[in-house]
Amino acid sequence: MSKNIYFTPGPTQLFYTVEGHIKSALKDDIGSISHRSKAFEKVFAEARENLTELLGLSQGHEIYFTSSANEIWERIIQNLVAHRSHHFSNGSFAKKFYSFAKDYQKDSILTESGPGKPFEDLSIAEGSELISCTLNETSIGYTFPIQDIYDLKAKHPDKLVAVDGVSAFPCIPFDFSKVDTAYFSVQKSFGLPSGLGVWILNKACVEKAEQLEANGQITGSYHKLSELRKHGAKNQTPETPNTLGIYLLGKVAKDMIDRGVKNIQNETIYKSTLLYQTLENHPDFNPFIENKEHRSKTVVVSECKNGSAEVIERFKKKGWILGSGYSSFKADHIRIANFPMHSKEQIEQLCDYFNQG
Amino acid sequence: MSKNIYFTPGPTQLFYTVEGHIKSALKDDIGSISHRSKAFEKVFAEARENLTELLGLSQGHEIYFTSSANEIWERIIQNLVAHRSHHFSNGSFAKKFYSFAKDYQKDSILTESGPGKPFEDLSIAEGSELISCTLNETSIGYTFPIQDIYDLKAKHPDKLVAVDGVSAFPCIPFDFSKVDTAYFSVQKSFGLPSGLGVWILNKACVEKAEQLEANGQITGSYHKLSELRKHGAKNQTPETPNTLGIYLLGKVAKDMIDRGVKNIQNETIYKSTLLYQTLENHPDFNPFIENKEHRSKTVVVSECKNGSAEVIERFKKKGWILGSGYSSFKADHIRIANFPMHSKEQIEQLCDYFNQG
Repeated sequence: MSKNIYFTPGPTQLFYTVEGHIKSALKDDIGSISHRSKAFEKVFAEARENLTELLGLSQGHEIYFTSSANEIWERIIQNLVAHRSHHFSNGSFAKKFYSFAKDYQKDSILTESGPGKPFEDLSIAEGSELISCTLNETSIGYTFPIQDIYDLKAKHPDKLVAVDGVSAFPCIPFDFSKVDTAYFSVQKSFGLPSGLGVWILNKACVEKAEQLEANGQITGSYHKLSELRKHGAKNQTPETPNTLGIYLLGKVAKDMIDRGVKNIQNETIYKSTLLYQTLENHPDFNPFIENKEHRSKTVVVSECKNGSAEVIERFKKKGWILGSGYSSFKADHIRIANFPMHSKEQIEQLCDYFNQG
Repeated sequence: MSKNIYFTPGPTQLFYTVEGHIKSALKDDIGSISHRSKAFEKVFAEARENLTELLGLSQGHEIYFTSSANEIWERIIQNLVAHRSHHFSNGSFAKKFYSFAKDYQKDSILTESGPGKPFEDLSIAEGSELISCTLNETSIGYTFPIQDIYDLKAKHPDKLVAVDGVSAFPCIPFDFSKVDTAYFSVQKSFGLPSGLGVWILNKACVEKAEQLEANGQITGSYHKLSELRKHGAKNQTPETPNTLGIYLLGKVAKDMIDRGVKNIQNETIYKSTLLYQTLENHPDFNPFIENKEHRSKTVVVSECKNGSAEVIERFKKKGWILGSGYSSFKADHIRIANFPMHSKEQIEQLCDYFNQG
């Protein structure tokens, strides 16, 4: 790897062990094995088992692999929504999921607060079958209060609650039993090459998809939930998947288990505290999310008094790649990823350098 | 890599240079770069340019990347068919594409001949908007006569002709200007890790998709053709894609250009001739496709008098991994891939070993 360290919010710095695992994969012919072989089934089962342990999932949870979190948005709309989903959005990614529902001509509802602003009203539109919350809005670094998500489910037990955990899992403790489906892509907190999404769902999702399919709804083709489940029961996939990606995910999940998920989560808190303190105390920076409770611990976003370009360029000279603001905030924000592969020492050095400039 | 040589029809032996390119990718941070960066755009543009040269595409052709050929089947049905597609099938993969059309509740038509049998009737059902031909049916090693494909288009200029080129391109010469869309996945003839599909299409496809979208048809979400085109115009993708896969494809396409596509195609003929001769002359084997004109040059399929298991096991001891028969033919057929990474020497050794047993 180069000497750069990527603090971009994803794709980002690869997890320490990825290079070694890629070498093992080549040695073990992971790029050549048939996706209908026992060798593949072992890779698939290991990834599932390690994710189950790392994320604290229960027996009732099922895990499927797609090509991206974008694809999971699409599959959720196709498989879990007949008429209406309700989306909470204060950033670009949550809104993009809503736009997928509209693409599929659902009568979906959007509750929008300003960018990064908390939601004042968590009421759900009548007839909604699914509620979507974005745990960590990567575009502006907003954390949806976790208790609010649990409360939404408790208040609406008849509706499915879907959680976008992109850039949050496994750094943020989360009780998956309190929602129905959650998902993420691997190029964020897991520090893996992009091209894989992980979809976690419970029995209620399965039943909903079965009901929609029985009712004649188009639920997709190779990646409709019933196909994913049919092949997944054999630890296989409907199509030839990103086998190398699934292999690497399983290995890195194991490495994270060995390191201790609690350690990872505690370090995440320490490092994010340091980052926010540094930015708050600096005259040129200001954390974008005002309320500390809503500040993302994994994607730290700051306004830049003199624009983002100068800061990004200055850090780049040190080999530290910061993220620019997302979309319309490109020129005004910096985004700093605080993932498990960003060590305490690296974050401390980063903060020191902020304090020097 | 291990000492095994994979003659499986895909995933298969990795192309010679893949390991080296993966090392370069790690060195150049391909797993970490943003999919909105100039560095990514360069990767994307290179892959497109090299494929354009390798496959002899023209200015009018557009190239997009999906996660698999399965996904391209789905996107074709969503974006290019309002009511009816017409599918020619004499093997599992062509039939699977047809089943996707039915999943999307199209009034599609299937012309089915027996497994691997030639099509006696190439007439097209009235109202068909798209005709699907499988150039190389990987499941049973059948080649759809290329002139028949060109003739179908010439006879039906108002319909789109779609060609499944999985396991054929770039080993089989093909004039892409004589059809409307063609596609393949990279884990076959390109010898790459799976998780990427390549979709080639012309202006007529673009116009059809625009018309369907204007008519209010659901054409998908992040990977509807209009989204692929919007981002593709900037050499970007709608979602965070399999960047490593796109990078490796571009590099291997360049390596194939340097080796000479004509050389690759000529070697394919030489090696397949040798394989078929060997199997024909052996008392225990019999090429599954009777008519020589219809025999696939890249996936050689043979019946095995004593079943496939014993042969596969015998070759495995030498480190040569043969493919079993597909699905219901698993126990009776072997499949031998004849791709650019399977050298003349390897195929000659393989044939020698057949002759010894």
